[in-house]
This record gives sequence, C-alpha cells and structure tokens, in this order.
Amino acid sequence: MEFKTFISLDDAISRGTKYLPKVEHKTVPVMEAVGKYSMREVKSPQDFPKMDRSAMDGFALNSNETISASKTNPAVFTVKGGLYPSSRVTYSVGKGEAVKVMTGAPLPAGTNAVVMMEDTKESGNLLEVFSPVRPFQNVSRKGEDMMKNITIIRSGERITPPHVAALYECGINEIEVCSMSIGIVSTGDELVTGEVVNSTQPMLVSYFLSKGLQARGYGAVEDNIGEIEKRLDSMTEDILIVTGGTGPGERDYLPYVVEKQGKYVFRGLRIRPGRTTSLAIMKGKPVFMLSGLPVAALVASENLILRVIENWFGLLTGAGDVREGVLQRSVVNALGFKSFVRVKIEEGKGGMKVIPSRVTGSGVIYSVIDADGIMVIDENLEGMERGQIVKVEMLRW
Amino acid sequence: MEFKTFISLDDAISRGTKYLPKVEHKTVPVMEAVGKYSMREVKSPQDFPKMDRSAMDGFALNSNETISASKTNPAVFTVKGGLYPSSRVTYSVGKGEAVKVMTGAPLPAGTNAVVMMEDTKESGNLLEVFSPVRPFQNVSRKGEDMMKNITIIRSGERITPPHVAALYECGINEIEVCSMSIGIVSTGDELVTGEVVNSTQPMLVSYFLSKGLQARGYGAVEDNIGEIEKRLDSMTEDILIVTGGTGPGERDYLPYVVEKQGKYVFRGLRIRPGRTTSLAIMKGKPVFMLSGLPVAALVASENLILRVIENWFGLLTGAGDVREGVLQRSVVNALGFKSFVRVKIEEGKGGMKVIPSRVTGSGVIYSVIDADGIMVIDENLEGMERGQIVKVEMLRW
Repeated sequence: MEFKTFISLDDAISRGTKYLPKVEHKTVPVMEAVGKYSMREVKSPQDFPKMDRSAMDGFALNSNETISASKTNPAVFTVKGGLYPSSRVTYSVGKGEAVKVMTGAPLPAGTNAVVMMEDTKESGNLLEVFSPVRPFQNVSRKGEDMMKNITIIRSGERITPPHVAALYECGINEIEVCSMSIGIVSTGDELVTGEVVNSTQPMLVSYFLSKGLQARGYGAVEDNIGEIEKRLDSMTEDILIVTGGTGPGERDYLPYVVEKQGKYVFRGLRIRPGRTTSLAIMKGKPVFMLSGLPVAALVASENLILRVIENWFGLLTGAGDVREGVLQRSVVNALGFKSFVRVKIEEGKGGMKVIPSRVTGSGVIYSVIDADGIMVIDENLEGMERGQIVKVEMLRW
Repeated sequence: MEFKTFISLDDAISRGTKYLPKVEHKTVPVMEAVGKYSMREVKSPQDFPKMDRSAMDGFALNSNETISASKTNPAVFTVKGGLYPSSRVTYSVGKGEAVKVMTGAPLPAGTNAVVMMEDTKESGNLLEVFSPVRPFQNVSRKGEDMMKNITIIRSGERITPPHVAALYECGINEIEVCSMSIGIVSTGDELVTGEVVNSTQPMLVSYFLSKGLQARGYGAVEDNIGEIEKRLDSMTEDILIVTGGTGPGERDYLPYVVEKQGKYVFRGLRIRPGRTTSLAIMKGKPVFMLSGLPVAALVASENLILRVIENWFGLLTGAGDVREGVLQRSVVNALGFKSFVRVKIEEGKGGMKVIPSRVTGSGVIYSVIDADGIMVIDENLEGMERGQIVKVEMLRW
C-alpha cells in the first residue's frame, strides 16, 4: 500500500490530539512525583512565612540603633529573652532592647532586623553589636516566600524538587499526576529470529518512562496479520505504538491490520527522519505506527507523540534550551519535509559552531548519543547554508 | 559552639571527596537505568551496521546508472530478486540490474545506493526509476552507526534513552550503576511538634532520587543529643545528611554529637546561602550537616554533596546550560563568600536580561520554583553591578 496522505507535523499534532482517550489521573506521594506531570493546579492557601521570621541565629533589634555600630564602638543592648521557631511572641521590644532569636523564630514587635550571632558579644544580659544591619536584614518577611494565591504548580507542569518543598509547605503530601500509559510492540521476522537486535523498543520504553509516563514493551511479533492483531488485542495501555512494518514494503502488514480493525487518522508525515510515521484508531484506541529504526522512532516519539499527549492534557512543553550558532557545513533539505538534524556544537571565537551530523541514517543511534542538539529545517526550505546563523535545540534527557 | 573553620567550596569538595566510603555497584536492567550513573565504560565490540544496509524500502542499484533518470525519461532495470533484513546475500548485481530491498536489508555487491519505492514503477520484473540517486543515498553504511571500539558510555555518565538503544545493540541488557545511598534526618523540636512543616527533607529525598541515587528520609528528631545519636545509629545508608541544628544557636546540639562520635572535616562553608554547611566523619561515615532551610539545603546538596559524589566516583558533571545576559539590578556580595543568586531571565533587545531574586532568604523556596537560573558571585567579588554582563546557569531538573 502506498503513502498518499503525507501531512505536516503541526497538522498531525492537532489531528492526533483529537483522538487521544480520556485517562484517569493517579494520586501519588509528592516525594515520588518528581519528573511526572502534575494534573492539578496548586495555589498557596496563605502567606509563607505567616509572619516575619528570623533567617539567622542572632539577635532581633531595631536596625536604626545599629547605624554607627563598629568593632571599636559597639552598639549596646539589653537582651530581653529568647525565641525559637516554635515560640509565640506575647511582648514587644523597646529602645535599647534586643531578643535572642534562633533561625525561624518570629520577630517581636519593635524589631525589624536580625544581627548575626558572630557579629555580637553577649555577656550576661548585655549585648554588644559590632556592625550595623539594614532594615529587614536577615529577616524572612511575611509572604516573601509565597504570597497567598500565588501559583505553585500548574496543571501539566512537570514536578521538580522545589515543587516538592512548596507542596509540603502547603500541607500537600499527595498529588494527582498524569497516568497515561503506553504499550509498545515491534514487528519484524528479523527481530523474532534475533537476526536483528530490537534496540528501538527498550529505548522507547525508557524514553516514555523518563518523561514520567507509564510504558511497557510487548516484545516483537512476526510479520503476520493474525499475529499482529492478537498481540495488539493483548495490550491494555491507553496509547499503543507499533514499530516497523509501516512502510510500503512487501512484508509491511500493518496497513492490512488497520484496514480490518480501524481507520487511519493520517498516514505518512512530512518529517525526516520519520516519514512513515502514521496514526490509526483501532478499536477506539490511538495506535501510532513508527519506523523500526531507532532515530526515526525517537524523533517521532519526541516531536509527535509526546507533543500530542501534552497538547491533549493541556500540558506545558517546557521552553527548550535553544541557542544560536554558525552552521559549519551546508545541509540539503527535502523540500516539503521538516528535517531534524543532529548537530554537535563547539564554542569558538565568533560564537558557537554548529556541526551537522547526518539527516539520513535513521538507524544511526550513535549520532544521537554523540549529538549536542537538534537543528530543525522547516518544510519550505531547501536547506541551510554554511555560515548561516541557525538555531539549535540542545538535547537534555 | 562557634564556627571557626569556614572554608571555600572548592576546598570542601576536595576534602569531602577523600572521606566518601567505597560503595558496591548494583546491576540493573538497562531499561530501568535511565537517569542513573553508569559505573561501566562500554565500547562498541564491532562495526554497526556490520555491513552496508538499505535505509529505505526500495531498490538497490548502481547510482551511476540513474544519473539522467527523470519522470519523462526513466532509467530501466531488471529486478533480480528481493532482500529482507534477515537475508544473506550470495550473489552480486550487474549492469542494468536492481534488487528489491526492504529497510535494513543488506546491499548486494555491485550496488551502492537505494532508490525509494515511491520514485519507481515496477511491472513484472521490470523497474522504472524516475529520479537519480547519489552514491550511498538511502544506505546505512558499515560502521556508520558505531565504529568498533567507539565509546558508547563512559563510567560516571548518566544513562539516556539513546544509550539504551546502543547498549542493546551491543547485546548489553544489564549495566552496573552507582548504588550510593543517602539517608536524611531533620532535627528540630518545631518539626517534631509540627509547628513548622518539614518541607526540606522530602525535597532533598526527591532531589537525590531524581539524580538516580538512592535516598531515604528518616523524619524529624527533637533537639536532644541522645535522640539524635539514636536516630543516626539507625540509618544504614552510605552517606548521611542531617538538616537543622548546625548553627551556633542554643538548641543546636549537633556539634556535641560530632564531638562525642567523630570529628569535623570542616565546619562552615564560604557559600551563601548555606554558610553553616559542615561535614563530619562519624563511626566511619560521612555526615553532611545542612541548614534546615530549604534553599540553603538545596544549594549545598547541588554544589557540595552531588559534586563530592561525582568527584569520588570519577563521575562526570554534565556541562550545564550557561548563558550570558545583562544584570538588571546590582547585587551586593559578602566578601569571602561564594553567592548563589537565583535569577529570572527575560529575552529583550540588547540581549538577555538577568533579574536577580534575593541572595538571602534561604527559606524562600518559591524563589527557586520561580527562578530560571543561578548566577554565581565569586568569593573575591564585592558584588555585581547593574548593566554588567553576567553568566547564568539555567536550572534544569
């Protein structure tokens, strides 16, 4: 069967987005949620800290009274008591008075700064201060960490360790995360016999796992319509991926399976590598069909499948690390196709050098290991010229 | 007890590195190893592919015979047979002959390129080719993916999905990863009573987990020498972290525990935030003591503990994403301290704008969530001036 409906990547993303199934969220401990997509927006329920607190071990006092303090001419205070983070303050502090405060202790009325213990000398209840402090120096001010109603995490944002601290701070120890699951099967007699190693499938499984999604590999199935159908039926995930067997070749039986069990959303994508990438709906489920070659499969997973998932969930694609540099070798593009070219970068005088790897060779996984980033060439361009300033999206795993 | 031995961060890293324990490696399935540190160097045992293979479904032929091929004047070939990825080639191809090849099929002698199926028309064993191909076009050349002996992963490198594919390709399904484990306990009556929420510990646990290390939280223990000792004794990890109780304050009992059970490697670090950061060896184990405030604890974890671990294992710190921009507001530094200033960045005309957050406020976790990167101010600088070009290490979790 021939490819007739090559469509653009943007088109494929918006078509694909319509066909994703609704999945339930899963609630997990916040501590295990790092790297996963939050499905909940969390706003701060109050000001943090709730009141001005000391940010140091030291003495709370009025900063005005330290203006001329120095080693030779210390400012002198009477120490009125001590406060801990757990203390409640029931008194205020007057002129010439200071209060010993531990880090986190509330600041009593009448004080507006904390002088570090190391800049003082305490003798009985007498305190000498050797250097001036500015107003609110060494003070964590009410609401300075998080103001009430500030957004801590948006729905669709991936959870980081600082989010964990902020969520705990708000009393949130569990959070709903995206529980989208992906099942991956590979087709090809050569994989079943072991003539060719199936390196694409474990890479895709680990790729989606590393994105905080659920993924499971279903091994390889021989080039046989019935066997492919049987294996697909056994896969319980929300989204299925089939690698290999997508082409117009003689042993590419997948189109026949699609014809029997569902319909194509699109067949063929204007990207390189990855032009045979297709999407069908079979028994109500989206089934992405990718090349069996590792680089083509990875490019399609990153630029189509993950983006469809993020789109559907209203998830946010993090702003990538995009840099500019000077292309060191011309690259020809197949007009009408968006090319994802692996590049290495080198710092040099006159700015960053961008050294393209190959645009073909979609089996060439080493070119990805070795690459620093991806240069995208748009559909309407015939290529990029040597010496041209180009943008590179740095690879971050 | 007072701080007497404030040392520089570099000094602390090299001292700390000497005291890390030897830990055993752990062997895990490659598919579950993404994000973990490989403890093994792997080189390619052979050329991949082992021979020239087709990178497309199409026809293998001699590219010279297609030079003048066009829609109106196709080059004509006799199709000699078909080859699959699992085929062995026992014949060679002569002038005017072509062989049907599926993606991955070996190229027979006498051919040097593959014309895509879409650019041809097949009628019986007669083939019309409508466009020329260059030598080796659509061919994966012997060794082009990975040449024999090329390094696939170095010891100490963090494993990515492309590594997974390359390791599988080499027949490696399991790999030794760093199994360093970290136990974290927090001290403070206010945490035990719940007066203050312990948000620092879950953040640190999730931070080290996200770095592919093993980490476990041991909750909070009250400010009491005996209780702290008992809890430390119960922790079985290779490296221990205690948060809080490190300062010179009245309820900071940790120094007394160190005095009884071991000795300080250093006490106090010339970084802000994080100046109370210390390291002791207790019962043969390194015990890092960090501020209980989340930002200070995170800065010390990233810039001291993780770097000590990477140093000791000969692990490689990935080149960060460092960018230059124009500082929008002057920042004062405490001379002698290396400051880690959270900044936001904005693209603007005249380059990137760097907007500093606060250098103090080490409890201010929102400033990390909200920050785009970290600007480091060196010990010997009194600050950074508005308008100055500064470097920013972008935050990537």
